[in-house]
Amino acid sequence: MNDAVELASALGHAAFLERLRSEGSRRYHDRHPFHRLMHEGRLDRPALQAWVQNRYYYQTRIPIKDALIVAKSEDPAFRRMWLRRIVDHDGEDAGGGGLVLWERLGAAVGLDRDALVSCRAVLPGVRFACDAYVELVRTRPLVEAVASSLTECFAPGLMSERLAAWETHYPWVDRAGLEYFRSRIPQASRDAEQALAFVLAHARTPAEQSGCVAALIRKTEILWHLLDCVHAACVREAPAGGPA
Amino acid sequence: MNDAVELASALGHAAFLERLRSEGSRRYHDRHPFHRLMHEGRLDRPALQAWVQNRYYYQTRIPIKDALIVAKSEDPAFRRMWLRRIVDHDGEDAGGGGLVLWERLGAAVGLDRDALVSCRAVLPGVRFACDAYVELVRTRPLVEAVASSLTECFAPGLMSERLAAWETHYPWVDRAGLEYFRSRIPQASRDAEQALAFVLAHARTPAEQSGCVAALIRKTEILWHLLDCVHAACVREAPAGGPA
Repeated sequence: MNDAVELASALGHAAFLERLRSEGSRRYHDRHPFHRLMHEGRLDRPALQAWVQNRYYYQTRIPIKDALIVAKSEDPAFRRMWLRRIVDHDGEDAGGGGLVLWERLGAAVGLDRDALVSCRAVLPGVRFACDAYVELVRTRPLVEAVASSLTECFAPGLMSERLAAWETHYPWVDRAGLEYFRSRIPQASRDAEQALAFVLAHARTPAEQSGCVAALIRKTEILWHLLDCVHAACVREAPAGGPA
Repeated sequence: MNDAVELASALGHAAFLERLRSEGSRRYHDRHPFHRLMHEGRLDRPALQAWVQNRYYYQTRIPIKDALIVAKSEDPAFRRMWLRRIVDHDGEDAGGGGLVLWERLGAAVGLDRDALVSCRAVLPGVRFACDAYVELVRTRPLVEAVASSLTECFAPGLMSERLAAWETHYPWVDRAGLEYFRSRIPQASRDAEQALAFVLAHARTPAEQSGCVAALIRKTEILWHLLDCVHAACVREAPAGGPA
């Protein structure tokens, strides 16, 4: 999906893994200026609220893109494994799951639940980026759709940093509202491990491996653009560019 | 999706329900000549094997079309409800679920498992019909995709009839192999009830209701065509036409 990363020949497991890690980690949104401001305690309440609102729209796309991934697989064992992700976000029953935890985060930063869930205040560019993620998953081969989830490799570190930063710098946010970040640390580790194993096993040709790297890069662009939009709307300085 | 059934005005719940039931039941494949031969004990072993093989391909499409339906919904409660269907077919773990039960049915009629699962022997027309079902679900609105599942309203009766007929007429088939049919009786009843409630609640305009009726009719055509193909390939008489 991106000619710039076309590989000339297939990489071995170690080299392919290293390529995914390096392309992903240097573009991951933990380096985004908005996250830096957030983790240094330099965001005001409206900026944190805007981030929670806009990221909520991203959260609502997760079970949808995961169901599309399930629909792409011919393997019941893979589908069983991946279905877990939908349950993680939608819950085993009403009142559970990541979406409900994100609504609690919304309450903890002072957002009205109905307004949050309506997504009325979501910025247009955020919507475009999140919808582009669903479209990527809908239109690309299974292995690339799975590869686009590999940003989860870097999520546990970001979640740990975020938890510490919020507890230190934003004491007005009820700590119980941070449960989503806590829950994602083990979930993202398990998810990343499963997705990596699948990608390593199923992307064997140069074209497949290039497609996976491109899908991961596109995903980092989606996450990065989400923060660009929130940053431009909420922070009184020039909008952020790409990663340095 | 079918101008022939365009409604002039929206029907009330009772009339809409009656319309769905009458359009579905008169086209349901329990009336197909191949099913009549099957239930009268007039199929030979190769014909039963061909049916089990070809219908297996249909079975493999079910979790895929259900994941597409999950991906169409914005409601975590609906997704939780519908996810159950994927689990019913793929199993809670390896060794469980409807696909494995169908493989046991294959063994019970004397099919080699690897050949069955490979779907090499599936008739082209069966493949076209089953793929058309997945495409219908992929491309139509959620409520129509759900309506296409309403053939399940008529499945428990057919399953009961089939169980009795196989036990009577095909004693060479190990009864343990019929567990799939047994398991579907309560599952199909629950599924049909949930789907009917959703369709009644969400198809309110003439266009939505017409779309649901058309989707259900298309689904009956898919099921009917599957049997047309197996009948033409296995039964020594003229291929069946549409329902009388």
